[in-house]
Amino acid sequence: MLPVNAEDFRTIWLCPDDDSVVQIIDQRLLPHDYHIQDLKRWQDGVEAISDMYVRGAPLIGATAAWSLYLASLDVSDPAAEIRTAADALLQSRPTAVNLGWAIERVLTVIEAASSSEDLPALIRREAGDICNEDIEISRGIGEHGLRLIEEIAAGKNGGAVNILTHCNAGSLATINWGTATAPIYFAHRKGIAVHVWVDETRPRNQGSQLTAWELAANGVPHTLIVDNAGGHLMQHEMVDLVITGTDRTTRCGDVANKIGTYLKALAADDNDIPFYVALPSTTIDWKSRDGLTEIPIEERDNAEVTDIYGVSNGERIHVRTTAPNTPVSNYAFDVTPARLITGLITERGICDASEDGLLELFPEMRTE
Amino acid sequence: MLPVNAEDFRTIWLCPDDDSVVQIIDQRLLPHDYHIQDLKRWQDGVEAISDMYVRGAPLIGATAAWSLYLASLDVSDPAAEIRTAADALLQSRPTAVNLGWAIERVLTVIEAASSSEDLPALIRREAGDICNEDIEISRGIGEHGLRLIEEIAAGKNGGAVNILTHCNAGSLATINWGTATAPIYFAHRKGIAVHVWVDETRPRNQGSQLTAWELAANGVPHTLIVDNAGGHLMQHEMVDLVITGTDRTTRCGDVANKIGTYLKALAADDNDIPFYVALPSTTIDWKSRDGLTEIPIEERDNAEVTDIYGVSNGERIHVRTTAPNTPVSNYAFDVTPARLITGLITERGICDASEDGLLELFPEMRTE
Repeated sequence: MLPVNAEDFRTIWLCPDDDSVVQIIDQRLLPHDYHIQDLKRWQDGVEAISDMYVRGAPLIGATAAWSLYLASLDVSDPAAEIRTAADALLQSRPTAVNLGWAIERVLTVIEAASSSEDLPALIRREAGDICNEDIEISRGIGEHGLRLIEEIAAGKNGGAVNILTHCNAGSLATINWGTATAPIYFAHRKGIAVHVWVDETRPRNQGSQLTAWELAANGVPHTLIVDNAGGHLMQHEMVDLVITGTDRTTRCGDVANKIGTYLKALAADDNDIPFYVALPSTTIDWKSRDGLTEIPIEERDNAEVTDIYGVSNGERIHVRTTAPNTPVSNYAFDVTPARLITGLITERGICDASEDGLLELFPEMRTE
Repeated sequence: MLPVNAEDFRTIWLCPDDDSVVQIIDQRLLPHDYHIQDLKRWQDGVEAISDMYVRGAPLIGATAAWSLYLASLDVSDPAAEIRTAADALLQSRPTAVNLGWAIERVLTVIEAASSSEDLPALIRREAGDICNEDIEISRGIGEHGLRLIEEIAAGKNGGAVNILTHCNAGSLATINWGTATAPIYFAHRKGIAVHVWVDETRPRNQGSQLTAWELAANGVPHTLIVDNAGGHLMQHEMVDLVITGTDRTTRCGDVANKIGTYLKALAADDNDIPFYVALPSTTIDWKSRDGLTEIPIEERDNAEVTDIYGVSNGERIHVRTTAPNTPVSNYAFDVTPARLITGLITERGICDASEDGLLELFPEMRTE
């Protein structure tokens, strides 16, 4: 088992032996195989994002930044190549707002550069900064979220705090520590008893295949459940707190996250269980207000629903679960309205899921 | 494809060539294999119920009745054998109330019989009656539920009525026609445009493997979705009506059904979409009132969550999706409180999900 949350764990890095190669974990193969994938051209980065070798809003952004670095290497017209790469990267996943944010950030640095500057070195520094800053953001989320867990733990007489999470908003979704998992890891390291209900997260099983894997690697007690089970657990007081991540949060606190998040928020609301969303401020889309009408919801390949990845007799294979030609629909995200969210855990603190709440933490985003 | 809803379709029957053998469809193998399974001893019936060759409250009841018939054959002390069989059958699934109801009904017939009567013939007639009556019950549910669909269709200008269902409360869950599907089949046969959103229904995939299969066999337009998707569809006005089945309904209208039903009821409520439960009155537990505290919720084998059935290269296999030793919890049902249910569709008509509503249709159950 890997030391996932050793301080030096990373989900993306520059190859130590060859600085024209970026390396990632091919997360599609987890938990059955831990494979390091080389990205040698920016097109590899597009494929890694769209085919979900990497996923999770912060890691998608970082991968886009590093892909622009790859685009700047060994070409006669780096500026043109970077523009082409940026366009392709922007199309690779529609819902995560970090993608556009990271690309914009790199492009701004390039625009400001003088013609004599070393473009690859500039982008490399910016991509590295994006990653380092993301780790600090996760750390901030972890510290603020830890207080929530401590408060609940205080009322449990040493009993474990039961936290439900959906999808993977873990170390694997960021550079390290995760968003939704950061408070959990921080609590666990502080010796607070926590237990995590891990939603399987159909269709891609990020819960059963990524979250369960990284919680196990870090020794955090957890139990896998099907996505259908959370409501029942909440009805029976087996959940103290829900924390999820988000791919895009509007200025007013609506949250787009993995499909099914909305159903858990409804159940938490119905059972008076606090429902928090952990997010780096990079996932806030300050230009949108109404999540239901303004956030594009990605539709993905039907095979994600019909064909399931697993092992049989030691072999890694996909099985088709359905009859051939079963019609399928596969929306990847849904929107949880702010009214169902108890609070947002950001790197600057915890706030109400509302424009006022967010602007109190991010006053520089006030438009008047 | 089989003529699933030909008038003469059955999910359980006495072998035409050998009346000491009961035959069922081994539903665990669908949709990849259509295998007829012989039940030769009552123990085969217990296994068929507990290992879910058959499932669905009405079919479980019918299988129990036919198992008691098998228990009465070729034994020196049929009465003792039947008691032993009845005890084992009662333990085979804890949540479906039809199990106890069907067993009780057969035992009552036996108790009333004189010593000179042919016990096997008596039970055979009773099991046959249970099946024939169940078909009439499904027909009643279909006719009453059809009116709901017709009303919605009237407002859609020929557009399809979009109906979401969870699990399989179809022909395969009953003797024929189903409960939740009966109104859908009746509408389809009447030429009303319907389209069914089929919840995959993890962990056992009864939606993707049974409901999708039988809707396809009957030519009913449908689309498979993951269990996580229903909320999103409802938020975007892509669902006109939800109909599910139930394994046990309390006197006050609380409904135990496949895990995840509660989440869909919450989403329907949040989006003002009618949420109906279709049930034969045999699934009403007149002795219980509060579903959340009084209905036992079955916990099943963890392998249902971790190991998934499908085909790979034409071979039927199970794959393990998770890392080895991932801790799992597997509750099979949840309870949807009556307050979230628009109405109950029974063989006698549609009523409020409340004690008053049910007693209006079933006045003989008044206790005063």
